[in-house]
Amino acid sequence: MKVVKFGGSSLANSVQVSKVVKIIQADDQRRFVIVSAPGKRFKGDIKVTDLLIQYAKATMNNTPTETITGQIIARYEEIATAFKVPQTAFEKIKTTILSLPQQDYQDDGYLMAAFKAHGEKLNAMLFAEVLKTAGVNAKYLDPKDVGLKLTDSPNDAEIIPSSYEQINQWADSKLVRVIPGFFGYNDQGQICTFSRGGSDITGAIIARGVHAKRYENFTDVDAIYAADPHIIHHPIAIHNMTFREMRELSYAGFSVFHDEALIPAIQGNIQVVVKNTNHPSERGTSITSHKRVNPAYPVSGIASSPGFCGIYIRKYMLDKKRFSQKILNLLAKYDLSYEHMPSGIDDLTVIMRQDQLTPELEDRLIRELVIALQPDEIHISHNYALLMVVGEGMADRTGIMSKATDALARQNVKLTMVNQGASEISMMFGIKQDEAQAAIKALYDTFFPDL
Amino acid sequence: MKVVKFGGSSLANSVQVSKVVKIIQADDQRRFVIVSAPGKRFKGDIKVTDLLIQYAKATMNNTPTETITGQIIARYEEIATAFKVPQTAFEKIKTTILSLPQQDYQDDGYLMAAFKAHGEKLNAMLFAEVLKTAGVNAKYLDPKDVGLKLTDSPNDAEIIPSSYEQINQWADSKLVRVIPGFFGYNDQGQICTFSRGGSDITGAIIARGVHAKRYENFTDVDAIYAADPHIIHHPIAIHNMTFREMRELSYAGFSVFHDEALIPAIQGNIQVVVKNTNHPSERGTSITSHKRVNPAYPVSGIASSPGFCGIYIRKYMLDKKRFSQKILNLLAKYDLSYEHMPSGIDDLTVIMRQDQLTPELEDRLIRELVIALQPDEIHISHNYALLMVVGEGMADRTGIMSKATDALARQNVKLTMVNQGASEISMMFGIKQDEAQAAIKALYDTFFPDL
Repeated sequence: MKVVKFGGSSLANSVQVSKVVKIIQADDQRRFVIVSAPGKRFKGDIKVTDLLIQYAKATMNNTPTETITGQIIARYEEIATAFKVPQTAFEKIKTTILSLPQQDYQDDGYLMAAFKAHGEKLNAMLFAEVLKTAGVNAKYLDPKDVGLKLTDSPNDAEIIPSSYEQINQWADSKLVRVIPGFFGYNDQGQICTFSRGGSDITGAIIARGVHAKRYENFTDVDAIYAADPHIIHHPIAIHNMTFREMRELSYAGFSVFHDEALIPAIQGNIQVVVKNTNHPSERGTSITSHKRVNPAYPVSGIASSPGFCGIYIRKYMLDKKRFSQKILNLLAKYDLSYEHMPSGIDDLTVIMRQDQLTPELEDRLIRELVIALQPDEIHISHNYALLMVVGEGMADRTGIMSKATDALARQNVKLTMVNQGASEISMMFGIKQDEAQAAIKALYDTFFPDL
Repeated sequence: MKVVKFGGSSLANSVQVSKVVKIIQADDQRRFVIVSAPGKRFKGDIKVTDLLIQYAKATMNNTPTETITGQIIARYEEIATAFKVPQTAFEKIKTTILSLPQQDYQDDGYLMAAFKAHGEKLNAMLFAEVLKTAGVNAKYLDPKDVGLKLTDSPNDAEIIPSSYEQINQWADSKLVRVIPGFFGYNDQGQICTFSRGGSDITGAIIARGVHAKRYENFTDVDAIYAADPHIIHHPIAIHNMTFREMRELSYAGFSVFHDEALIPAIQGNIQVVVKNTNHPSERGTSITSHKRVNPAYPVSGIASSPGFCGIYIRKYMLDKKRFSQKILNLLAKYDLSYEHMPSGIDDLTVIMRQDQLTPELEDRLIRELVIALQPDEIHISHNYALLMVVGEGMADRTGIMSKATDALARQNVKLTMVNQGASEISMMFGIKQDEAQAAIKALYDTFFPDL
């Protein structure tokens, strides 16, 4: 049995929805369907989730909401009309949208969570009706009924592990169950959502819970590619990859599949297949725990993520343990997280995402570091990218390192950091953000030469 | 005016001492002479400092000391006799050695410090007499009189910064002042020593205190070499290097000049020259803050240091800040220091000197790490070496990295860590200890090709 998840672009309008219906009809193993909220129909369109966020803010601020509710209702109505969904079913959706402000919410955080979650909830209710009109024996299943208990963090919740036992009781369901992604409930029965894009997480949790053979994640790309198609013209598709590879690549900007969704898949050892709703016969990308035997290329993918800064700190004969403890304490004080802390003999660099720092906070942090560490030198550099070369086939990492640095040297890409320490399947380079495209091109040509 | 320091091998016997006398006579700028204890006269010989440590232990354990005091006295007597030092002066040395057990010591730590320090103290007293017999207007100057105040850590003390003002009052001394290296006094007037080999530190402190033009460090090598002469046949000499280069190379095993001795030299911006007592006309190695213009080679030196282990820890979606705080707390609990902590996406490696860990402590540490971190994977690997490529000329580090990794790949040296992050003048590789020789040869051939 398979769990299938459809992203927002797969359910953006009736044309897309009809493709999804066909995909479900094509394989009777597809028995758990997780849906996102309707996404963009065209470039520049607004996602229903974003409309719901506007709706929630207008409600909090007591400003008029008619225009926005009209837009939201129209999105569902187009689909309902096209599939001749019974009027009573659609009326329920409409009423629910209009009555959202009248519900009880503990505070604005819960209000926001509930409004957002309805993008998925109503879409799942509607899609169950659509499937019925198409002759599929389908039924809406609410996250409350399936047993999806989340931590009490309204807009950034996590699964409570006991949920899996509850979910497992649905494993033998004969109907096609349509479950909204993105949200669940806390102990008090209030709606809490995962982080944005969290429908992938719901799908992975359900797949783990029901011990699915496969978790199919339908989106709008034929596969995950070895490099960003915006930078490399027709990059090679990665048809098979491991969980670890996916994790490293998604860290560095491969955003096809939600990061946190990998964890339930890994824990349950569920095969994840990324497929295209628009070309369902394409192979897509299969993600499993199995390493490939004799991979065609030692490197699987090359990724780069911008927006990092580095705080360089030098002090002669520093005591690294005390030094880094003081740094971590200061980071904790300002709730900042760091990504890497490469160290030389008498210096270290704290590499972090720079969107965490306002100019004021940056000044204060540097000032407090000076007081705490009394360094001989300290300065911060902005606009770095982390460039990752990832591959389970990197057994001979010395050879790969040599090829990679040679390719970068030939393009005059300056390496401000080279980090290969812990992970056996990746190496990481710190480069200037504006050299990232050239770097990716150079590495792609090196590691995928005959394409 | 110059401060001159002579190592143990330069003062091991009367033949060596006569070379030192000539060196001092050759330049009347050499007005502060720091001496070590008599070192080895031949391979397999015992240093006086080690005899004194045996003497201290025998005293603590109340075992006979006649043989050992006999050996110690004989070492000084050979020199005294050769230079016809007045009998009264030598008798004073002899009596001091024999009366060491009768002094008051706060505890065994101070006893040990005082015994060890007398290797230098008596050698300085003797050498002042030797210089006088050679017609040099010389005088013994005790660290107490020169104002060398140290922290109250009997066998691993550090300078108290106010000492520099005291030392400076001796700057205009017209005599040649002979000062024993290695020790000073705490606030209570008790002897405390630097770490082993600390005479270099005394020399640097005196040089900074009297604002010397130059600090000449006489030892038994013609220069500092670009690589270990035990591995590379006749390596190129480094005639000019910067403090930073020296610091990075000495970290990785270049033991010519004591690590901690660099700090006063850097703080006072004192030129350090390493020279050979046996070939004083050789250029030696000059260490300053000046970078070379157009260096002949981008790399200055290649060094490798064995004896490291790495604790690899993996956990999906770890919070790096909390994770590393917990690790540092555990290291602090067991008073362990770490050298580097390279991190991947979901893993990090703690690299530390393995001589800190007994098998029992290692087991306990791993067990406590498991409890504190609940990692998905944890293991420790032993017998790594850190390989350093150092050079102020490494402006194009990408090119150097590419050449270095290419050379290592051709020799099949496996890189378990690559760290280039903070320091602008070095890159660091983690390799297997038993591949270190091959690695150094490969890098030497690459970066010093025409030799």
